[in-house]
Amino acid sequence: MIHYSRAAILAADKSFRRDFVNTLTGYKSLNLIGTKSVEGTSNLAPFSQVIHVGASPPLIGILFRPHTVERHTLENILSTACFTLNHVTADFYKQAHHCSARWDRSEFEGVGLEEEYLADFSAPFVKISPLKVACQLEEVQKIACNDTELVIGSVQHVFVQENAVGIDGAISLATLGTVAVSGLDDYYTGVRLARLQYAKADQPVKEQ
Amino acid sequence: MIHYSRAAILAADKSFRRDFVNTLTGYKSLNLIGTKSVEGTSNLAPFSQVIHVGASPPLIGILFRPHTVERHTLENILSTACFTLNHVTADFYKQAHHCSARWDRSEFEGVGLEEEYLADFSAPFVKISPLKVACQLEEVQKIACNDTELVIGSVQHVFVQENAVGIDGAISLATLGTVAVSGLDDYYTGVRLARLQYAKADQPVKEQ
Repeated sequence: MIHYSRAAILAADKSFRRDFVNTLTGYKSLNLIGTKSVEGTSNLAPFSQVIHVGASPPLIGILFRPHTVERHTLENILSTACFTLNHVTADFYKQAHHCSARWDRSEFEGVGLEEEYLADFSAPFVKISPLKVACQLEEVQKIACNDTELVIGSVQHVFVQENAVGIDGAISLATLGTVAVSGLDDYYTGVRLARLQYAKADQPVKEQ
Repeated sequence: MIHYSRAAILAADKSFRRDFVNTLTGYKSLNLIGTKSVEGTSNLAPFSQVIHVGASPPLIGILFRPHTVERHTLENILSTACFTLNHVTADFYKQAHHCSARWDRSEFEGVGLEEEYLADFSAPFVKISPLKVACQLEEVQKIACNDTELVIGSVQHVFVQENAVGIDGAISLATLGTVAVSGLDDYYTGVRLARLQYAKADQPVKEQ
């Protein structure tokens, strides 16, 4: 094992530190966030900072960095109160990554992903995505120590590939082909180990 | 595609809704969080709500649900200001899951994972884990809409398997064998698709 002290991490080259710290938490979810500006321009951006916040009521959070190109997404959410989350599969993860470039037009058009409008929701969905979630802005919390902002959205609609939803409600990410990301640019698909039963003390852990 | 409206999700059985909403965000990181009570009892709990908050300075967040057994972890963090994050591999993911049971003694002892103390840090690490992070409490933010709490820790030390750190700083989760989770109990390993270069508009996306 190598030991990196806080001082060593702070003294490292900026790009080394960025890649190193971004991989510390492990696999991250990957979602394309679809928004529309008040002027009507659609926007699509890849995010790995999406987090489950609660099930009852269904809430999802996105952590926004201060002063990045992705602030377009935040500005659109704050001005329209609507956004969509769209899972990414191996079929279009390179197009998803390409959405992070500085486009002078809609990323949908730039990278060649078709936008779709469903259930009278005003923000755009990604047509090819097998799991799409429509969210309405619920709350914004500023994180004081580094000026990031946690945006909480309440789930309004879910559109999901039919064969991926179990009778118990769990959606199979393996069936969807959902992609995960490590750091900023390292993409993975998942291979299932097992689904485990509710754990009890002093009893062996069983697979479902 | 099936459409689930907000009304349908809210009307669903509680366990269906929990499993359904917990899988909406995609793959989640899996970390064992090690803490110690002021009385000196070590605690170990699996968390899938760990998020990268910033690289400069290095910050990591954990979202805590209100009123769950995992509050022991939160109480220990608030009273001692120290915790560790430990990646989980396929070799011990069942033991990690077993830590979620209601133990009447230290989870380390209950599930048979050895605790380790490094660099004079007071919270316990998981000896077998290939990536261990020591964090100090930095900030707590209450999420008003559902009483969850986002705890931010600043990275004090990282201990990582030597061959997993690239010269650019990126840590290979595939080399570590890190496990991801979907929902509450569905465990996965990752298979790498590719690492992609910094994206530029109107230029093809290239692999690194």
